[in-house]
Amino acid sequence: MTRHSPYTLHNRSSECRGRRGEVATQHGIVQTPVFMPVGTQASVKAVTPENLKEMGAEIILGNTYHLFIRPGHQLIESFGGLHGFMHWDRAILTDSGGFQIFSLKDLATITEEGAAFRSHLDGSKLFLSPEDAVGVQEALGSDIMMCLDTCIPFPADRKQTVEATALTGRWAQRCRDAHRRRQQLLFGITQGGMYPELRRESAESLIDIGFDGYAIGGLSVGEPKEQMHDITEATVAHLPQDYPVYLMGVGTPEDLVEGVWRGVDMFDCVMPTRNARNGTLFTSTGKVVIKNSRYRTDHIPPDERCDCYTCRNYSRAYLRHLFVSREILAYHLNTIHNLHYYLNLMKDIREAIEKDRYGAFRDDFYGRLEGE
Amino acid sequence: MTRHSPYTLHNRSSECRGRRGEVATQHGIVQTPVFMPVGTQASVKAVTPENLKEMGAEIILGNTYHLFIRPGHQLIESFGGLHGFMHWDRAILTDSGGFQIFSLKDLATITEEGAAFRSHLDGSKLFLSPEDAVGVQEALGSDIMMCLDTCIPFPADRKQTVEATALTGRWAQRCRDAHRRRQQLLFGITQGGMYPELRRESAESLIDIGFDGYAIGGLSVGEPKEQMHDITEATVAHLPQDYPVYLMGVGTPEDLVEGVWRGVDMFDCVMPTRNARNGTLFTSTGKVVIKNSRYRTDHIPPDERCDCYTCRNYSRAYLRHLFVSREILAYHLNTIHNLHYYLNLMKDIREAIEKDRYGAFRDDFYGRLEGE
Repeated sequence: MTRHSPYTLHNRSSECRGRRGEVATQHGIVQTPVFMPVGTQASVKAVTPENLKEMGAEIILGNTYHLFIRPGHQLIESFGGLHGFMHWDRAILTDSGGFQIFSLKDLATITEEGAAFRSHLDGSKLFLSPEDAVGVQEALGSDIMMCLDTCIPFPADRKQTVEATALTGRWAQRCRDAHRRRQQLLFGITQGGMYPELRRESAESLIDIGFDGYAIGGLSVGEPKEQMHDITEATVAHLPQDYPVYLMGVGTPEDLVEGVWRGVDMFDCVMPTRNARNGTLFTSTGKVVIKNSRYRTDHIPPDERCDCYTCRNYSRAYLRHLFVSREILAYHLNTIHNLHYYLNLMKDIREAIEKDRYGAFRDDFYGRLEGE
Repeated sequence: MTRHSPYTLHNRSSECRGRRGEVATQHGIVQTPVFMPVGTQASVKAVTPENLKEMGAEIILGNTYHLFIRPGHQLIESFGGLHGFMHWDRAILTDSGGFQIFSLKDLATITEEGAAFRSHLDGSKLFLSPEDAVGVQEALGSDIMMCLDTCIPFPADRKQTVEATALTGRWAQRCRDAHRRRQQLLFGITQGGMYPELRRESAESLIDIGFDGYAIGGLSVGEPKEQMHDITEATVAHLPQDYPVYLMGVGTPEDLVEGVWRGVDMFDCVMPTRNARNGTLFTSTGKVVIKNSRYRTDHIPPDERCDCYTCRNYSRAYLRHLFVSREILAYHLNTIHNLHYYLNLMKDIREAIEKDRYGAFRDDFYGRLEGE
């Protein structure tokens, strides 16, 4: 069955693969390239949905693995899905749980049938097949669902990579077959480790099945940055240009700039939210480790170029005081700033591509970081 | 020197000592009776100033002891005081630090000169005289400052109580003499333990000195509720009716209702904020311990009679999920609800006194609690 792509292209950079477009979902249009804040357990940590809207978030990410374990997808479905449960009326992408189960290591066993694992909460035995992964995500009501995939460690030999990639392909077909609620989009995930030709094979097999979008999985798992960028580039080259491309679990601000350069439309990462809680703030001139005593009497905001709620109203000295005092407000204000920084970076990237000056934008971006 | 009282009476109940009025400060008029959310370390835990304004807070409390130790009053003064430092432009009352130093027990030594103590953070030796307490509070820029007082443990014998109460009186005179920035109000604190005649003597000695308001200190320290109410009543009887009366560190919703009945205008307590972080929500029908499994699938908000942000948008099931998952958003949403409950209770109390139906209001209040 031919499916209509949710992706619409606006502009293409003349300097690189970077492109400006949008993805249509049941809960609104998402402007791309986009960064998706991570809301693992039905909450983007330390902020409200209103905070996310104020900073311009159009889509957030939820984790199937976590929600399956607690509070359970049936309960969430009884609230009209994740949107109703967590009070978020814009788009949601859920990952399939594959990466989290892979992270459990000794607690998980992967077979042809699916993934058997033990809950990290209470050790109870659980099982997730590709069909289950789709069923759970349909119950969660996410706008974009991800196929269950197997992740490949780094480093991995060719044999291991071939097998895991082939299994991911067979699971992708089963996910596609199990997909009933077609208003919810389903994305395939390419694997193939650090082998460009396996990445190509993986992409081609997914295209044969046919999805609403294509993700690059299994990167940012410990490989050198350059290799991550090379594999991204090699994979994007084999993905259809009229569908959205999603680089999973990436990354630093620099990674986003480089990913867009290579044709990526969508990103997600815990970095802005997690670093906020660890007291590291992203700014236009580099990272600010707020607990540092150099900020004790500093009257300026975290980033003088930033217009987020935190930077409009608070000094580095106050944020340092909150952080060293372990005040909960520290996590809230730091998270607002970091997510705003990421979302605003993507907004600037979109504008630069619209004006076809992405090369100059990228130079300026690195120039400011080096100026610090 | 005769001082103009900051208090204006609006209405007086015909059934009790309850009264409706206002206290004028440099940062706005405070409608009374009022509950003041506690912002110990220059932050009302887990909420922003905007959240506090949305729930109608007109005054919050800061702690001299904590701010003196960290980040230091000189730093805060360089930000134009606590208001500028923490981004709050409404009224602030600071306590003197007496109660916190008293709570340090073995780490503190009280002499005629003042309180010698060790920081609970790093054990460093510190000293706070009555003059220091006023100087620090002047630097903090609080709208209402409190005299340094000595707290009396419960139980305490008469001799101990007489001595501590007399010392509090001598310190009150020294605080009054040290007071320079007269735009910042200074309140005296009555002590006298559980001895009504000592409470009277304490009140009279403070009135002789002359303050902008009078507080009842040393209650809610372990005595039976009835005794707390009796001593409140006995103290209020000896305080001037044209000045604000502040019952320090009190209390439960029931305590507020009873305090107002006996003539109290101002209250503060960590109970709504602390209980929020422990997962206990105050509602019109009693407490809701949100982690309880009975709320696992509960679709209703914490309090169906409440119109706070949390109750308008979230279910008990979602709040339970956040709390058991230790999501930071749980503390934020619970705190918004509990503070809204306290502030809304005070609003209802003010309206009831305006309509001279405080007795009926009080009956309804207890009736709803018993209905649960």
